[in-house]
Amino acid sequence: MEHVFTYDTTLRDGEQCEGISLSLEDKLLIARKLDAFGIDCIEGGFPASNPKDIAFFEELAARPLSHAKLAAFGNTCKKDVPADRDAGLRDLVESGAQVATIVGKSWDEQVTRALQTTLDENLRMIADSVAHLKAQGMEVVFDAEHFFDGYRANADYALACVRAASKAGADCVCLCETNGGMLPFEVEDVVRDVVAQLPGQQLGIHCHNDTGCAVANSLAAVRAGARQVQGTVNGLGERVGNTDLLTVVADLELKMGFDVVGERSLKGLTNVSSYVAEVADAPVPPHYPYVGASAFAHKGGLHASAIARFPEAYEHVRPELVGNGARMVVSELAGKATLMQKAASLGLDIAGDDVDVQGILDDIKGREADGYTYEVADGSLALLIMRHLGTYQPAFTLESFRVIVDDREDVGALAKDAASEATIKIHVGDERFVATGEGTGPVGALDNALKMAILEGYPEVADIELVDYKVRLLDESQGPGAITRVTITTSDKYGSFGTIAVSENVIEASWNALVESIEYGLMRRKMLG
Amino acid sequence: MEHVFTYDTTLRDGEQCEGISLSLEDKLLIARKLDAFGIDCIEGGFPASNPKDIAFFEELAARPLSHAKLAAFGNTCKKDVPADRDAGLRDLVESGAQVATIVGKSWDEQVTRALQTTLDENLRMIADSVAHLKAQGMEVVFDAEHFFDGYRANADYALACVRAASKAGADCVCLCETNGGMLPFEVEDVVRDVVAQLPGQQLGIHCHNDTGCAVANSLAAVRAGARQVQGTVNGLGERVGNTDLLTVVADLELKMGFDVVGERSLKGLTNVSSYVAEVADAPVPPHYPYVGASAFAHKGGLHASAIARFPEAYEHVRPELVGNGARMVVSELAGKATLMQKAASLGLDIAGDDVDVQGILDDIKGREADGYTYEVADGSLALLIMRHLGTYQPAFTLESFRVIVDDREDVGALAKDAASEATIKIHVGDERFVATGEGTGPVGALDNALKMAILEGYPEVADIELVDYKVRLLDESQGPGAITRVTITTSDKYGSFGTIAVSENVIEASWNALVESIEYGLMRRKMLG
Repeated sequence: MEHVFTYDTTLRDGEQCEGISLSLEDKLLIARKLDAFGIDCIEGGFPASNPKDIAFFEELAARPLSHAKLAAFGNTCKKDVPADRDAGLRDLVESGAQVATIVGKSWDEQVTRALQTTLDENLRMIADSVAHLKAQGMEVVFDAEHFFDGYRANADYALACVRAASKAGADCVCLCETNGGMLPFEVEDVVRDVVAQLPGQQLGIHCHNDTGCAVANSLAAVRAGARQVQGTVNGLGERVGNTDLLTVVADLELKMGFDVVGERSLKGLTNVSSYVAEVADAPVPPHYPYVGASAFAHKGGLHASAIARFPEAYEHVRPELVGNGARMVVSELAGKATLMQKAASLGLDIAGDDVDVQGILDDIKGREADGYTYEVADGSLALLIMRHLGTYQPAFTLESFRVIVDDREDVGALAKDAASEATIKIHVGDERFVATGEGTGPVGALDNALKMAILEGYPEVADIELVDYKVRLLDESQGPGAITRVTITTSDKYGSFGTIAVSENVIEASWNALVESIEYGLMRRKMLG
Repeated sequence: MEHVFTYDTTLRDGEQCEGISLSLEDKLLIARKLDAFGIDCIEGGFPASNPKDIAFFEELAARPLSHAKLAAFGNTCKKDVPADRDAGLRDLVESGAQVATIVGKSWDEQVTRALQTTLDENLRMIADSVAHLKAQGMEVVFDAEHFFDGYRANADYALACVRAASKAGADCVCLCETNGGMLPFEVEDVVRDVVAQLPGQQLGIHCHNDTGCAVANSLAAVRAGARQVQGTVNGLGERVGNTDLLTVVADLELKMGFDVVGERSLKGLTNVSSYVAEVADAPVPPHYPYVGASAFAHKGGLHASAIARFPEAYEHVRPELVGNGARMVVSELAGKATLMQKAASLGLDIAGDDVDVQGILDDIKGREADGYTYEVADGSLALLIMRHLGTYQPAFTLESFRVIVDDREDVGALAKDAASEATIKIHVGDERFVATGEGTGPVGALDNALKMAILEGYPEVADIELVDYKVRLLDESQGPGAITRVTITTSDKYGSFGTIAVSENVIEASWNALVESIEYGLMRRKMLG
């Protein structure tokens, strides 16, 4: 099997993503994770741009990666400056990285308008920079910025740029689709031409997702002959993001027959995705190819019955191949087999002869008819099953709660403030606790009061955090008296889970979902911790 | 320019998305929005599967869409049942929809293993069903389920299935990539073969995103000759989701030179995306092609300096073409002309020279930056404009409100009841009113108390009814202290309208949205009544 080289730029181009900011420690964690996963080259950043990146290269020079090569990123030498006297290139050499990746122009107008120099001087800058870095013993990747726009505008000049890099000894010439505006058939045609023009030269591809085609564009380039793919974990990157390197890895391995990270490493794909999401504090959307929580989940009435008879028809690959699970979405349509699978995925065994699975199913169906939906509420589902198994033990019991929301304002003025206060009376074992919590809203006040009330009995509750809260009215025609469904997403050190409750009273529903979030959080800590 | 037909299945396949549940009102709002945007065909659901879908088809039969055709979805007739005696096909005919979309098998093993019938009987089912629906005067789309897997396994049989549908008179034969496992070059090859086999037949394409290539696969099919593209808004759908129809529309119009919704409608692309996200309660990730909040946002140090000199190098298309902005969250109301149009539709004239339209726009933008979204809140928008015009007169002024929610239960028992009580002190003109209302929930209690307090001054308030109430946390990472956005839908004899409010306190936000719903309800009664 032919190998396609993977080049990760999460730590440089990925960090251009709005809302992403990686500390030194974050960058090191991600680099070591990608190294263990089998990525071939990891781009660390600009080695001289800031103290954080300098420290990053120092740390990896002292304790190198085991498989991956480390790349330092920079520009070609400045115009009218000889390569051996260029400060930026010197930083690359001194970074201790094995690979220098230098970006240069290949679009004629970019040279004249942005760089404000001549087309010939740009060719000189490319060739001199590559030759200089090679002479210093580095492996060199030349990133041809805006190559596809450049090719469209002036193919001869774009080709002259990559030819200059190639002749000067670049180990890889990477064609960058900087603008993200191309479609796969365009990319494929252009790459085929470059392959023909530069026989024997390793080519790379670097895409952005602005047309929703970054993955397909990268695959098209590989079909045309590129053998290095650049991308980022989870597609992090500026604007719409870069090529999602993990999706490309899976597609190349499982669909196109290339060797990339190997079958065994591939099983770590989902884990790499969620690990980086956690470190970068950028959650993976559930609807994400291969690695998303919903990637192999089924709900459809049309499908559910057919899956049991012919699973290949509803899984394009076996989820185990990428370390993901075929999580069945529990709904009105679920049968016994799917419920057992689901329970097992929650660490609950309902396969025994003494378990009334039909009773559990009937309970779920009855509650779904009342407005519950367990699809997004693994926590509440687990508690429901445990109640049937007789293994549920309430962590506490409620005596009463009262919530007061006050708003007072000068007549005619706008609302200034509204404070909420919740008082909870609760029993933990034989002890009775009374606690009052405040909050800007009633749910926050209840959350605070409840945690305060049980903190003595369960200090671990401090690590259980409410992160999302949604309310929906179920029967619109009833107006404010309608049934309210509250779903809460809670996060702890094992990840996140949902709980759900339904009531005519939004506060009551919030309270019940909140209680289940705490109960399940404490429970799974006992099971997993 | 050649036309590519768009077929939206958000309301059927999109609803298979985990966590999505659309009410009747939601489905109608989405259908009318897509109709106005210029989608050619809108699939509404299974016309007989539940009361909600039945009511949906009844409502659209009574008040039809203006541009789009309405499609009812179902299966081919059952095995061994003549088409004219099949209950499912009868439901399609009776739905009142113009288009019947029927799904049938085209993968030999699916026929024998899942359907458990013969290959010939399946061909009979396809041909009979199509012919029967055509004879009933319907336009027929045949969805060939698993067509690409079927073609790979047994191309002759897969082709026989679509040939049967075509010969029986299907207006469109849609090739469904049900499993989502294909890549663009595979899709293109297969579609080219079908085009060759069925000359003159309109072909459709329906893809899922499991390889991260749904958009590229759909574009590849169009290149090969398909002229109907099926997809969902924001790519909602089971597992990894369906083809994102909006991205495809933009790619086809802006990159491939097809006519789809037209240049003018295309400017509404971003608005359609956020509108559906709001109604479906499924936020659009910021890093989303064309329509995401970050889609045209720049952060990169490398780029930022260059953008000023050469903007084309960093925007693959001008964001205005798709109604997005380089940074701002853009709503329908972004420009003066559209705001004037919108105001006129609300019966407000802001065209006069003395009106500071820019001031109104700035106010809207500022509030949208705080989390308001006026797209679903005509009532609040009208009040905002009237405040600028100086024509707003408050119907009442608040002195204070207090809400108390109590829950008391026997220790160990489940929650039995929770009652809410709201006390409002209010001024109408020179008079002060104090009223207490009860409700099963706090919003209901506030609604009751408020109506009671102002009933003497405004007896017509009895006809203004709160029908829907949605809450969303805006910044999840803040947990229960996050900003809360409440949208309320209110109904009166002129139809329904929305109001919106944002606060850290859910009760405060609910109160403000409630007040605006009553204020606007009274106002428009004065204007229209």
